[in-house]
Amino acid sequence: MKIVIAGGGFGGLRLARKLNNKRGVEVLLVDRFNYHQFQPLFYQVATAGLDASNISFPLRKVFQKSTNVRLRMADIYRVEPEQKKLVTDIGDISYDKLVIATGAGTNFFGNKELETHAFSMKSTVEALQIRHRLMENLEQATVEKDPQEIERLMNIAVVGGGPTGVELSGALAEMKNYVLPKDYPELDFSKMTIYLLEGSGKLLGAMSEKSSVQATGYLNRLGVTVRTNTQVASYDGKTLTNKDGSQIQTATVLWAAGIKGHVPEGITKVETVRGNRLPVNQFNLLEPYQDIYAIGDVASMVTTEYPHGHPQVAPVAIQQADNLASNLLAELAGKPTHAFSYRDKGSMATVGRNLAVVDMPKPKLHFGGFLAWLVWMALHLMLILGVKNRLFVFLNWVYNYVTYDQSLRLIFREFHRPSDEQPPVLQARKFMEGEKV
Amino acid sequence: MKIVIAGGGFGGLRLARKLNNKRGVEVLLVDRFNYHQFQPLFYQVATAGLDASNISFPLRKVFQKSTNVRLRMADIYRVEPEQKKLVTDIGDISYDKLVIATGAGTNFFGNKELETHAFSMKSTVEALQIRHRLMENLEQATVEKDPQEIERLMNIAVVGGGPTGVELSGALAEMKNYVLPKDYPELDFSKMTIYLLEGSGKLLGAMSEKSSVQATGYLNRLGVTVRTNTQVASYDGKTLTNKDGSQIQTATVLWAAGIKGHVPEGITKVETVRGNRLPVNQFNLLEPYQDIYAIGDVASMVTTEYPHGHPQVAPVAIQQADNLASNLLAELAGKPTHAFSYRDKGSMATVGRNLAVVDMPKPKLHFGGFLAWLVWMALHLMLILGVKNRLFVFLNWVYNYVTYDQSLRLIFREFHRPSDEQPPVLQARKFMEGEKV
Repeated sequence: MKIVIAGGGFGGLRLARKLNNKRGVEVLLVDRFNYHQFQPLFYQVATAGLDASNISFPLRKVFQKSTNVRLRMADIYRVEPEQKKLVTDIGDISYDKLVIATGAGTNFFGNKELETHAFSMKSTVEALQIRHRLMENLEQATVEKDPQEIERLMNIAVVGGGPTGVELSGALAEMKNYVLPKDYPELDFSKMTIYLLEGSGKLLGAMSEKSSVQATGYLNRLGVTVRTNTQVASYDGKTLTNKDGSQIQTATVLWAAGIKGHVPEGITKVETVRGNRLPVNQFNLLEPYQDIYAIGDVASMVTTEYPHGHPQVAPVAIQQADNLASNLLAELAGKPTHAFSYRDKGSMATVGRNLAVVDMPKPKLHFGGFLAWLVWMALHLMLILGVKNRLFVFLNWVYNYVTYDQSLRLIFREFHRPSDEQPPVLQARKFMEGEKV
Repeated sequence: MKIVIAGGGFGGLRLARKLNNKRGVEVLLVDRFNYHQFQPLFYQVATAGLDASNISFPLRKVFQKSTNVRLRMADIYRVEPEQKKLVTDIGDISYDKLVIATGAGTNFFGNKELETHAFSMKSTVEALQIRHRLMENLEQATVEKDPQEIERLMNIAVVGGGPTGVELSGALAEMKNYVLPKDYPELDFSKMTIYLLEGSGKLLGAMSEKSSVQATGYLNRLGVTVRTNTQVASYDGKTLTNKDGSQIQTATVLWAAGIKGHVPEGITKVETVRGNRLPVNQFNLLEPYQDIYAIGDVASMVTTEYPHGHPQVAPVAIQQADNLASNLLAELAGKPTHAFSYRDKGSMATVGRNLAVVDMPKPKLHFGGFLAWLVWMALHLMLILGVKNRLFVFLNWVYNYVTYDQSLRLIFREFHRPSDEQPPVLQARKFMEGEKV
């Protein structure tokens, strides 16, 4: 049986590993990149605390000794369920069973202007682009004469008060407080404002009231200007305008205010639900098809406890992958399959050094501060793939902690080579990112 | 006195550090990038053994506590000696004394076709581009049907048998021998050939006969196809043709066959000499001007021992910077200045694990193998700027040595964002690289 897994994120990679070296299944894992990305730490790549490679793991390395898992770096154009195949930039890929684990991308809610000018951070490469732009803006500020323009270049607006927005604005504030004034003695950092804008009435809406209040307090302490009940109306690359009419002058808007499922074309027999997710049954099956599954962020499984689908977080993707792997193998062996049930182990967010919040569900427990920060770090270290990456992340953290210095303030921007007729995989990648090629 | 240093390489950075916090001098260090690049290890970035950040050090970090050294990221369009200023993409920069430390770039000897299709490796970013292309070619090979095309995608031709070419081809051979077959079980690596093409009769022409013979033996042992007396005539992106008519089918040509001085425009009173270098006197002064100096690769100081100028290596640049710094300070203090004299401490090249060659001048001594390899590593570790970079390079080396695995096989290629009106500094950077903007 040939199982094709579309996407090498938390869900897709886990599924492939669970099916690795199992008899009776041939697995093909398809991803746009040649590495697995550890999403929870993108914000540290963007703020120069970690190297992109520290949180990326070559997919081929995971399956070097595999007898039945093969890899392809490809962009999926569409699914053709009748022909049981994927149409991709590297040709057609046929399957017996297809698992859609394509995750979610940034949701600009149809605002094209925002999409053009704001940065999203749903891939390692985008995190690097943010880092480069932040550094370039400061370099420009050192040679700019107009005080208003200098402020615009220094100001940063983070939009979206979920964990990503909280972590990103906290890390930016620490850069502003500890690192940047040393690097740029010619700039007056009292003129730099880091905004965190949230549409609802509170930050970390999915977490406990205590966590929300505590995280807001931490951000205030670090000097972040937190504005709740603030919805962005437009951004032209220079001026951000909120729906209440207030404006912010900034050259950098980091958009973490929403995600939407990455649904490949061709899935016509089902309609996507809220957040552009694919409705699946308790076995992660897309019911109108008997051979297409979806797991993780792109899937929406409605249960009494989760009437709008499970939260779009790594543990759900991983647990769904585990359950689907054992069901697929059970089916092959003629054994009974099991419905998915989610064990919620809690949630957490970190704001800065010694500052984090943790919510645990059973027993219901909240804690914050230094202990929460230690727990956050330990857990993330455990989850990172690869001993070497774990060591390098740890060493970078120790270094940053001791020296108050995110040291990777480097602009490695590639220039276009005249001979760059790009290989098809890259053209397609651009295509997926919304650019016409 | 305002001293402007053009270039933050080995020479320029050393000079700025020697003038750091000295009374009576204001220093402005100008570079295209915001970091110092450790050129000797570019080839390890290209072959996925080191991270780009491991060999790059933020220039602003070096001078965080400086009272008199300031930095600008800029491209120099030209010098206007009469007005005593530099014209750059970020505006005019005036000087009392100018030190040209712009180094050297790749020399394609006027062959535009080669320049378009071959890769050069004179910056960290170019090393990354090589890494990305190598990985992309292999991914393409896995889905290619035509056996000839597969071979073309796998083959690599390194041109130039100096230290860079030797080190690069050795590292590529080790990837081919140890890493790639594990990553790509679908490819037959007996079809992959790594060529090292050298125009003269022997490799490492600047080193001893013993070193040349030994390095050639090492490369043969690793499986590199070494061809001396072979000059490249043309390369169209697919087929490399040598002057003797022989051809090599390859999608990747890495050009390490020559360099030429990066001379800014406007220096009209002197004519450049061999290798596009600026002739300087024994005090590194460009004599027709009384306020312009040149040091390092871009300078050519003729002495009886070095009738064609000193070798274009880091120690010359560093020693010239030291001498110039003390002369500039002596002049200010009304003390006598000293002519430059080069202390040659020897040269070395590494081929692969446990394989290197070392030549020492006084006492005249050659050694190779494991000991030379250890010496090579120890010396390069010492020379790298920053404790953290040193540690990370060391750990990467230990990891690569123990696991036989250059683990950074990651393609982090940025995609163009629709809103990327690039900041002027970047447009200018492209301009410097020969692209019209």
